[in-house]
Amino acid sequence: MARWDPGARDRLRRAALELYLERGFEDVPVVEIAERAGLTRRTFFRYFADKREVLFAGSERLPGAVADAFRDADGDLSAFDAVLHALTVVGAALIEYGGNARERRAVIAASPELQERERTKLAGVTAALADALRERGVADTGAQLLAQVGVAIFRTAFDRWIDHDGRADFRCCFGAVTAELRTALAGEAEIGMPAS
Amino acid sequence: MARWDPGARDRLRRAALELYLERGFEDVPVVEIAERAGLTRRTFFRYFADKREVLFAGSERLPGAVADAFRDADGDLSAFDAVLHALTVVGAALIEYGGNARERRAVIAASPELQERERTKLAGVTAALADALRERGVADTGAQLLAQVGVAIFRTAFDRWIDHDGRADFRCCFGAVTAELRTALAGEAEIGMPAS
Repeated sequence: MARWDPGARDRLRRAALELYLERGFEDVPVVEIAERAGLTRRTFFRYFADKREVLFAGSERLPGAVADAFRDADGDLSAFDAVLHALTVVGAALIEYGGNARERRAVIAASPELQERERTKLAGVTAALADALRERGVADTGAQLLAQVGVAIFRTAFDRWIDHDGRADFRCCFGAVTAELRTALAGEAEIGMPAS
Repeated sequence: MARWDPGARDRLRRAALELYLERGFEDVPVVEIAERAGLTRRTFFRYFADKREVLFAGSERLPGAVADAFRDADGDLSAFDAVLHALTVVGAALIEYGGNARERRAVIAASPELQERERTKLAGVTAALADALRERGVADTGAQLLAQVGVAIFRTAFDRWIDHDGRADFRCCFGAVTAELRTALAGEAEIGMPAS
């Protein structure tokens, strides 16, 4: 690797991603991840509960961060615009912090177990947003709907950002996806049609 | 029970729902479900792979049914309207077929394991719809987005229908939820605000 990784956690994370991509998540034992990172199995478990959590470290803070960003949104925004604001702010921060998004996505796409874990993570974000919407007075099923649709936009924007090799601005991806959904719902045009 | 249940499968399903509601999904062994239904453990396993699958029997046909309904939709509909059409048709059929939706929802809401299973089920529907959208020429991330938003509307409409004790028309619930989302996205009004 060209860059020097100062921390053990980062080295473990990179080693795990490399190995998962090479051989598949299911077939890589923890001891090999540790070896490739130049560390021991014991050190691995000081940082991560198991080999799955290497890919989800920090995600337990995501629901709270999104709910906080929702509550901090300008009071003049509509409930749904506050949802969009919160998800943009947290998404942009995520991208600052975490690299290897493309590799992580490829590893998850190849494993039903990891896809399930990813859904659980996003369900936590959805539930936190729905709670925050209810606090604001949005009725129960409406809160669920707006939270789910917000998270769908978030996922799509994140995928779009990865597809642009991280060179696009996340906020622009998010805005473009929201605009596409608005158009599709307004029934004015087909969404995402290839130019012909 | 007041009504006579002709089939063993139905009796098992009702007995399971009753017991899960009384004592929680995790704490009910298969043998008790069978006993309450007046059947043997062996008969239970002739119908269901495990006690979780009592709540998900038939759901493996859902992704295919939704994709078929999408392909059968009027060619004049926009891609997203075809998604909405497909989910309405399948939802209305589901409601004809399956009772105890309220009880089923309560049991699932009380169990993280069952919530995970429910998310896996809906992810299957989302993936099938996204594939069908791609077949129609919708670009990759756009197809994911429309499928996810369609399924979010579906879930909300189904919840709304249950909240009305099944006395509302499912198609009306679906249409009302879609209209609410349109309004929220257009930024014209707050969604689901209690009248004040």
